[in-house]
Amino acid sequence: MAITVVGSVAYDSIETPAGRRDRCLGGAATYFSLAASFFCDVRVIAVVGEDFGPEQEQVFKARNIDTRGIEHAAGKSFFWEGSYLENLNEARTHNTELNVFATFEPKIPAAYSDSQFLFLANIDPVLQRRVREQMPDVKLVAGDTMNYWINDHRPALLEVLKGLDMLLINDTEARVLGDNKNLVKAAQNVMSLGPRFLVIKHGEYGATLFHGAKDKHSHTFRAPALPLEEVVDPTGAGDSFAGGFFGYIASQVELTPGVLRRAMFYGSVMGSYACECFGTERLVQLSRAQIDERFNQFRELTHLD
Amino acid sequence: MAITVVGSVAYDSIETPAGRRDRCLGGAATYFSLAASFFCDVRVIAVVGEDFGPEQEQVFKARNIDTRGIEHAAGKSFFWEGSYLENLNEARTHNTELNVFATFEPKIPAAYSDSQFLFLANIDPVLQRRVREQMPDVKLVAGDTMNYWINDHRPALLEVLKGLDMLLINDTEARVLGDNKNLVKAAQNVMSLGPRFLVIKHGEYGATLFHGAKDKHSHTFRAPALPLEEVVDPTGAGDSFAGGFFGYIASQVELTPGVLRRAMFYGSVMGSYACECFGTERLVQLSRAQIDERFNQFRELTHLD
Repeated sequence: MAITVVGSVAYDSIETPAGRRDRCLGGAATYFSLAASFFCDVRVIAVVGEDFGPEQEQVFKARNIDTRGIEHAAGKSFFWEGSYLENLNEARTHNTELNVFATFEPKIPAAYSDSQFLFLANIDPVLQRRVREQMPDVKLVAGDTMNYWINDHRPALLEVLKGLDMLLINDTEARVLGDNKNLVKAAQNVMSLGPRFLVIKHGEYGATLFHGAKDKHSHTFRAPALPLEEVVDPTGAGDSFAGGFFGYIASQVELTPGVLRRAMFYGSVMGSYACECFGTERLVQLSRAQIDERFNQFRELTHLD
Repeated sequence: MAITVVGSVAYDSIETPAGRRDRCLGGAATYFSLAASFFCDVRVIAVVGEDFGPEQEQVFKARNIDTRGIEHAAGKSFFWEGSYLENLNEARTHNTELNVFATFEPKIPAAYSDSQFLFLANIDPVLQRRVREQMPDVKLVAGDTMNYWINDHRPALLEVLKGLDMLLINDTEARVLGDNKNLVKAAQNVMSLGPRFLVIKHGEYGATLFHGAKDKHSHTFRAPALPLEEVVDPTGAGDSFAGGFFGYIASQVELTPGVLRRAMFYGSVMGSYACECFGTERLVQLSRAQIDERFNQFRELTHLD
């Protein structure tokens, strides 16, 4: 099974208590693709500038990720600069340059059209919707967003949510989008906007899957995060979670409760690996055996009997 | 098996988004005792004032809690006033009156001397140590503390920690006591001060048990908290967690890894029930069947296969 993902492929300058990296390859679609590529075929839709060369392309190729949907435009790639000096759970943004993303018109290669899974990574909801409309036949659509779109582009985002099966956001985003400080009530409100499945990511505390607004407990599942001795760089952890979660789902025949639960664990595994090095450094060196090893650690971490 | 607990029996005035209660029965030893009483015999050491009458006594008696160690002194009981209006995870203290606690000299009734388990609830570490020294033959000692003692009474607290098998504190306290922002490193530092077992409570995100500083993963266990639709009053949730955790341990023959894991779940169960009503209102109406029902919900919430 193949996932098509649309989102940013970008350069990030990052400062954390562990150090600093300038202009390393990043972007939500990059992290998502790398993480999902351990589970299924992945096809990317994005736009990059002239600063994106063969070396960066190779990061995707090495994981067999289809890059035919990455458009090369004149100018510079999307750039983000941020730090996590006070709080590893929340980035402080110092600079965002949309660059080639400012005029991006997503085009879907014919070779992507048989994708059964679509992931709308965190970008302008107008672009998310355009991609969604060009792929009407996908079996399952998941997506991400952030407070900027929730607060300042709500009508466009609400249109996207209507077409989503699954939404993956963090605590703060869920409380703002669901307009309630209580996470369970916020989750119910968010699901009433469209997505049947809602994954709320709690950073170092794991993530909760909500499914079905009526009975609050029977459709709730919580996956832990691994307590990490060293968090080097949390950038991309949420996108990597989404890649592990949705990638595992795409690798399975049916969306059973067991598949959803294991998907939550694989999401947590990929998110935890992403934090161990700067940028994509850890993900590109990962093996499926290591992923399954940590999956088993996670199981052990919460297993009761 | 019986637990002796020393700590505050107090009156609390509490304001939360759900409303306000004036001078309801509270205190760490009260919440701990009520929660633990569903699992084993509980004996309380505390001091109360003339405002503690038969009605309050009956709250303990109804759960078969031994109150012979509750000293009645002239004056008023310990009083705390606080609110959770902005953040349900952290109380804002408006007023603390030590009252009869200011001159408290803990005395242990002869009838308590065969207790095999001792819990030193959050009080002045000088008092914790005095009780510990009067009960040299207990099998297992657990305790709690708070930032005030960690910051301003560190030498006395360090003495207490040397005599503790288990310490239960929250994220912030662990980071301050362990002098590290990273929870795993902070946990290792805290354990080097004495306790072999460290439970770090994450409020609505559950709790993590650390055991053994060497191998960071094999001795870590994480129990979830139930996502609650309505948190009425978080006062006493941590003490109720401790009561469920330590009470369950005291009810078992051996301290096996399985017992520790189930104890973490019972702690989470009691903490979640405590939040559902003001003060001790929910705990006093609880049944063991309801406790086990929620225990099973928790198991389901994180069960993988």
